[in-house]
Amino acid sequence: MDDLRFMEFERITEEILGCSGGACGIEEQMKFLQLPNREKVEDMVDKLFQLVYPGYFRDRSLKFYNIRHFLTTLMEDVAYHVEQQVQLALRYRHGDMTEDERQDKAVAITKAFINAIPRVREHLLLDIRAFYEGDPAAENTDEIIVSYPGLRAVTVYRFAHELFALGVPVLPRIMSEYAHAQTGIDIHPGAQIGKYFFIDHGTGIVIGETTVIGDHVKIYQGVTLGGLSTRGGQSLRGKKRHPTIEDNVTIYSGASILGGETVIGHDSVIGGNVFLTKSVAPFTRVSVQNQELAITEARFHE
Amino acid sequence: MDDLRFMEFERITEEILGCSGGACGIEEQMKFLQLPNREKVEDMVDKLFQLVYPGYFRDRSLKFYNIRHFLTTLMEDVAYHVEQQVQLALRYRHGDMTEDERQDKAVAITKAFINAIPRVREHLLLDIRAFYEGDPAAENTDEIIVSYPGLRAVTVYRFAHELFALGVPVLPRIMSEYAHAQTGIDIHPGAQIGKYFFIDHGTGIVIGETTVIGDHVKIYQGVTLGGLSTRGGQSLRGKKRHPTIEDNVTIYSGASILGGETVIGHDSVIGGNVFLTKSVAPFTRVSVQNQELAITEARFHE
Amino acid sequence: MDDLRFMEFERITEEILGCSGGACGIEEQMKFLQLPNREKVEDMVDKLFQLVYPGYFRDRSLKFYNIRHFLTTLMEDVAYHVEQQVQLALRYRHGDMTEDERQDKAVAITKAFINAIPRVREHLLLDIRAFYEGDPAAENTDEIIVSYPGLRAVTVYRFAHELFALGVPVLPRIMSEYAHAQTGIDIHPGAQIGKYFFIDHGTGIVIGETTVIGDHVKIYQGVTLGGLSTRGGQSLRGKKRHPTIEDNVTIYSGASILGGETVIGHDSVIGGNVFLTKSVAPFTRVSVQNQELAITEARFHE
Amino acid sequence: MDDLRFMEFERITEEILGCSGGACGIEEQMKFLQLPNREKVEDMVDKLFQLVYPGYFRDRSLKFYNIRHFLTTLMEDVAYHVEQQVQLALRYRHGDMTEDERQDKAVAITKAFINAIPRVREHLLLDIRAFYEGDPAAENTDEIIVSYPGLRAVTVYRFAHELFALGVPVLPRIMSEYAHAQTGIDIHPGAQIGKYFFIDHGTGIVIGETTVIGDHVKIYQGVTLGGLSTRGGQSLRGKKRHPTIEDNVTIYSGASILGGETVIGHDSVIGGNVFLTKSVAPFTRVSVQNQELAITEARFHE
Amino acid sequence: MDDLRFMEFERITEEILGCSGGACGIEEQMKFLQLPNREKVEDMVDKLFQLVYPGYFRDRSLKFYNIRHFLTTLMEDVAYHVEQQVQLALRYRHGDMTEDERQDKAVAITKAFINAIPRVREHLLLDIRAFYEGDPAAENTDEIIVSYPGLRAVTVYRFAHELFALGVPVLPRIMSEYAHAQTGIDIHPGAQIGKYFFIDHGTGIVIGETTVIGDHVKIYQGVTLGGLSTRGGQSLRGKKRHPTIEDNVTIYSGASILGGETVIGHDSVIGGNVFLTKSVAPFTRVSVQNQELAITEARFHE
Amino acid sequence: MDDLRFMEFERITEEILGCSGGACGIEEQMKFLQLPNREKVEDMVDKLFQLVYPGYFRDRSLKFYNIRHFLTTLMEDVAYHVEQQVQLALRYRHGDMTEDERQDKAVAITKAFINAIPRVREHLLLDIRAFYEGDPAAENTDEIIVSYPGLRAVTVYRFAHELFALGVPVLPRIMSEYAHAQTGIDIHPGAQIGKYFFIDHGTGIVIGETTVIGDHVKIYQGVTLGGLSTRGGQSLRGKKRHPTIEDNVTIYSGASILGGETVIGHDSVIGGNVFLTKSVAPFTRVSVQNQELAITEARFHE
Repeated sequence: MDDLRFMEFERITEEILGCSGGACGIEEQMKFLQLPNREKVEDMVDKLFQLVYPGYFRDRSLKFYNIRHFLTTLMEDVAYHVEQQVQLALRYRHGDMTEDERQDKAVAITKAFINAIPRVREHLLLDIRAFYEGDPAAENTDEIIVSYPGLRAVTVYRFAHELFALGVPVLPRIMSEYAHAQTGIDIHPGAQIGKYFFIDHGTGIVIGETTVIGDHVKIYQGVTLGGLSTRGGQSLRGKKRHPTIEDNVTIYSGASILGGETVIGHDSVIGGNVFLTKSVAPFTRVSVQNQELAITEARFHE
Repeated sequence: MDDLRFMEFERITEEILGCSGGACGIEEQMKFLQLPNREKVEDMVDKLFQLVYPGYFRDRSLKFYNIRHFLTTLMEDVAYHVEQQVQLALRYRHGDMTEDERQDKAVAITKAFINAIPRVREHLLLDIRAFYEGDPAAENTDEIIVSYPGLRAVTVYRFAHELFALGVPVLPRIMSEYAHAQTGIDIHPGAQIGKYFFIDHGTGIVIGETTVIGDHVKIYQGVTLGGLSTRGGQSLRGKKRHPTIEDNVTIYSGASILGGETVIGHDSVIGGNVFLTKSVAPFTRVSVQNQELAITEARFHE
Repeated sequence: MDDLRFMEFERITEEILGCSGGACGIEEQMKFLQLPNREKVEDMVDKLFQLVYPGYFRDRSLKFYNIRHFLTTLMEDVAYHVEQQVQLALRYRHGDMTEDERQDKAVAITKAFINAIPRVREHLLLDIRAFYEGDPAAENTDEIIVSYPGLRAVTVYRFAHELFALGVPVLPRIMSEYAHAQTGIDIHPGAQIGKYFFIDHGTGIVIGETTVIGDHVKIYQGVTLGGLSTRGGQSLRGKKRHPTIEDNVTIYSGASILGGETVIGHDSVIGGNVFLTKSVAPFTRVSVQNQELAITEARFHE
Repeated sequence: MDDLRFMEFERITEEILGCSGGACGIEEQMKFLQLPNREKVEDMVDKLFQLVYPGYFRDRSLKFYNIRHFLTTLMEDVAYHVEQQVQLALRYRHGDMTEDERQDKAVAITKAFINAIPRVREHLLLDIRAFYEGDPAAENTDEIIVSYPGLRAVTVYRFAHELFALGVPVLPRIMSEYAHAQTGIDIHPGAQIGKYFFIDHGTGIVIGETTVIGDHVKIYQGVTLGGLSTRGGQSLRGKKRHPTIEDNVTIYSGASILGGETVIGHDSVIGGNVFLTKSVAPFTRVSVQNQELAITEARFHE
Repeated sequence: MDDLRFMEFERITEEILGCSGGACGIEEQMKFLQLPNREKVEDMVDKLFQLVYPGYFRDRSLKFYNIRHFLTTLMEDVAYHVEQQVQLALRYRHGDMTEDERQDKAVAITKAFINAIPRVREHLLLDIRAFYEGDPAAENTDEIIVSYPGLRAVTVYRFAHELFALGVPVLPRIMSEYAHAQTGIDIHPGAQIGKYFFIDHGTGIVIGETTVIGDHVKIYQGVTLGGLSTRGGQSLRGKKRHPTIEDNVTIYSGASILGGETVIGHDSVIGGNVFLTKSVAPFTRVSVQNQELAITEARFHE
Repeated sequence: MDDLRFMEFERITEEILGCSGGACGIEEQMKFLQLPNREKVEDMVDKLFQLVYPGYFRDRSLKFYNIRHFLTTLMEDVAYHVEQQVQLALRYRHGDMTEDERQDKAVAITKAFINAIPRVREHLLLDIRAFYEGDPAAENTDEIIVSYPGLRAVTVYRFAHELFALGVPVLPRIMSEYAHAQTGIDIHPGAQIGKYFFIDHGTGIVIGETTVIGDHVKIYQGVTLGGLSTRGGQSLRGKKRHPTIEDNVTIYSGASILGGETVIGHDSVIGGNVFLTKSVAPFTRVSVQNQELAITEARFHE
């Protein structure tokens, strides 16, 4: 091991930090120390689950007799961290705000967010009902709350969307990528999703930033609600690039629906593996038909 | 930060807890405190890996000279936690059982489960052989045990299936969703899977509750063995809704095979992206044929 | 709980350890205690992120005023652990090496790896630029570094590939499966990937061991760059089994490109869900065309 | 290291467990698994400090805006653990109680204990005043609360004494030994101590089980209020073996006052290193007088 | 356990917080949240040991090849926390300072403190030499550094004294009470202690705030260098109340030397258990003489 | 905080490391990295308590049904760490041993130590009996095992003494200083102590390296069994410097017995605060007699 003692670690550090141009100067770095903290955001999300599903996600640190006191204490803790992380996010984006403006704005956003929790919970209870009714394998709603990745993703989405709608930068995305990593379901916090939303299995689902989804929509694993093309790159920012899904639509596994002008009319069913870049009328059933399959003998199996 | 101090946190707590109807009354909540504990279940699963793959997943807390003593101690720990969590699961589902009945049943289930470990291990050793033979990128079986997500998912499945077969509610599902989160592979603990099972890459695989799979079956990433439709919702519970895959079948990436009456005859090969809702005879090779592709010049690349 | 006290735990341990043949004898086990340690490897990867993206992934254990000192200390720590794990990996594969040879080789590999960090970082900065330009939803490059799973997977790949190229066994695979578990993106460390590589969303992507990818390539979720068939099993080891993707190619979601002789010519676009087993010329646009869809009325919605 | 692998660890375990007679049979052992848990008791004590000195001993796990919610939650947690540990202690001592009797008694004791907290706090505020007035080195009362070992010992004593007075076995002693280990001050929970009690420095102080101390008493390091002799051993149990110290007494460092019939009359001062086994009247000043000291030249210093 | 659910925890909280007068109103409490943090201070002290005794107290979090980089990083961390805690301490004491003044002062103090570390280390190396030469049981100086409580107490004292001399309130006392709890040795940070200071065993030693100690002084367990009386209480603040010990003095176990005007002349030896309230000339040996001992037969041993 | 960023931390590091002479050169430092690890030694001691008092000190990491398996596993862990730390200690002291010699010696010592555990336990059971019989405040032997600092110190001493007797350097002292910090009782591992040893309260007790103590000896808090003088410093190493206490002797609190030739004859009683530097015959009772006390009126109490 002798040799490693004499490596020029300092020189390599210099090389890492010293690269010219771009975002790599030492002064530049310092500013990033102000980004919202991923670990704290994830902890905050975990506590939000304890708040909206009281009793399901047990905190190990404190025993209680009256869940009311515990929830109130937990909520103050969440409020504290939301406020902290929102301030960091605002400082990051709005370098020109004064410290006071930033603080005032962070407090206002936090208040709005905390006040929204009961409303978010009501939405989630409707989602849970949709999950239960949609999945024959679900024994009961408790199992769904405790173990369904689809509900996990939807829950994080609904909270992240609140912050997105309040104009908070960066933070909602960190939240949704946390859910993405846990579930394989990628819902952009900017998407608009109605009531009674149901995701089954879920791995591989992508729902883009400008997607609009109605009520009573069901989506299965591997579905993409995406952009038609990204040719324009950054010039497309802010434009509607992802489809609109109206009420009572079911989209089976592996289907792709692309484009900002694509509208799936209400009460339609999109079959598995369907690839759609055009709108369909309400009450339409679309499925892969006559998929030409070569069916040959395989006696000498590979 | 002044303002937040005066938020009505208590009122919001009331709103969260007080919503009328459904599963949200305070008394209701208390019952959920009795659900199996996700964190403990995940810890139990991690220890099962140490038990069936002795030496591969090292425990940091204790050094040992004779792996035999260590495994025996670990097994007692696993038995303790299985018994605890099974009791919680039984209390949850069978509210009418007496405490004594529940305890007797939990002990009986735990014994059966622990006794099954050597048998499960033998199955897994066959799976590992299938993994090794099926994957040219595998250097050796150790690499497979230590790092292949497919084997991780299969291992958890085989244990969860034992508990499922013993009639334990909720718990097997928490186990399989743990594997799902880690691997992106979603195998319902109710599925029946034969020997020499091989999963490659695996992300996006869904294997439904009533699926039946024979021996020497290979499945690639993104394959769905699913229900044909979920129109019936909860009324479909308990019915066979997912396909049957006979021995020696290979199913390539992205294929979907749907429906409870769909049978893939033995020694067949299902090609990538195939979408099947009907049975195929033994020794059949099915592949997407003549997929009509528009091939145009793209000189002005996006 | 009475009964469990009298279970024959020791007998079951014997059964687990005593199975005849294969990799399960007690003496065999002992050797596996020498495999690289998954937990330490994952910790090492986390620290590599702190090194190449200084300031973005904050270490909680130490505060600092001058990031230079902190990075240098961190780099020594990384070097230490790389050297340790490389030694374990070498011992595992090359049982015939003397202890001294192994140590010399491990030191040499570690030096090469640490010296490569600045170069890897330069590559990653180009990747980040590609991510930013390719994704209209990206607000800025910081958000990409902190939260994009695609960049996470690419970062781990670039480091794992360095070790793979230096001939280190097992270790690179543990690294890439760590990224796979976190992101659902499975890039084999043996793949060769050029500059300005962009992955969007990413869940379900599989890039096989012998894949070759040029510069300015974009890949979306669910894309497989895989082998045509695995009929040959282990006999295929070392052969080129995965496709070649030339410069400036875009591959949309769900597309599968298979086979070692398949070449996607430069400046081509492969559309969503396309299934390709043959080469296409440069400047080609391939898309699913005339997918025959059954479009029927669905008034009595399921 | 080879050799150790073949040690007869099992035989040594047998020797440890198999020794005949006394408290060492395996069945005997099992009963001890029911003793109050030292670690949990210590955690409970730490939380009592947070409760009686709100704001001084910060909990890291939860941030709050309104200390009221936090304290209430904390108090429920303390109540839970007190009840648990009291049950264990009762089971240990009263093997003949039914489970129900034990539970009822534990609940009653816990209620009495929790209700006593405000009263204990009032007492402690008076002690703090005595500490401040007695110590010229004390800058303020906050410093005393945060850092004085004397106050730490007195605080633990006052809580342990409550449980002792409620008839709880074992538990109070574990509490007082926790304080003893932290401060070097050994106050038996059975001692009776009045208001405005002040301990300075404190290391080495011993206050026996049947000691009675009035109001406004000051005690310095190394003071023993002990038994005259322990000749009688267990036959002395329950008898008054330790002295009585009336109001307004000061006892300087290293003094020993021994015997159950020894009474230090009110408003007396006992000087440093005095050794007393007899009572002294009120308003008495006792000091070592004419300590015969050999005073010689020490020019050739050791 | 039923009952506890209905306890009036909130009422008891009110009682705790609502007591009239003194330091217990809710608004009052809030201010205390600003005290230096005991846990952080203790962590800072542990790191100071790593800094002044490099290599002896190993940090587990980071491996290194060049201790220089590690120490520099550690020093920055210590500087950060010193600055933070000094700010808290200043805010606590100097409520009237502006935030800017406080920050400037905290930075100035921290700089002075960090710059003093090499000097403190030199002093400590002399102390270590005194420990080694004074204790025949010491095998070598390493054992002293790693395990002697006396050196631990002296080390913390020397650092706490630096901060005390720089006018930092509260913080030095928290540091010295940390050492007191670990060693039973209570050295007030205000004491002035010369070079080559040696403490043996140490438990029970008390060295008061205004004590002055010369070079080459040795002190044994149970020695008090204290005030003659505390009759005056707070009115004595700031006055010299503790003795002066000149160079080359040895004070054996259990001796008490009291009073601000008491001077122990250089090259004197104070014997065990001696109780002194008057000065002695240089080159004096003082010992308990002709201690009248009752020596009687004890055939019927207790 | 600006300023601290520009402190010359590197220069200060140089000063710390660069001081000329003594034990402070960088190369010197590296050797100390080989000292036994205090934290690991303390962990080992805690596990020894679990081993000799099975059931009293519960391990949280593993549940078990058969304490036999758990103890065996724990014993292997202890053996592993003893062997590791003994090797470090040997390397430290015997720089000239070959690696193989060192390893062989460490294995031999570890075997002897582990084999001694049952014998040590038998001794401790006798000590516990002495504790119970000697202390009227002891309710039962369990309380003594769980909470008496005296027994803690004696237990650690008995184990440290085994290693001391086996010629292990440094390590035994680290063990005894761990007990010293926890209990305020300082027993040098070199002391020889007979059966049925009882320590009450214990804070401040010092028992020197060459002390010899018979059976059935009782010692109270603040007792010193020390050297007469340390004039000779290191030249006294290895000589008998501390007293001999024969069987059935009781030594009350605060007594000092000094000198290597001082023998307290069997069946004697040494009273509180007695200061002895000469031998006493068997069956002798020694007490402070006619301590001249000034008894004056104290009506104007301080």
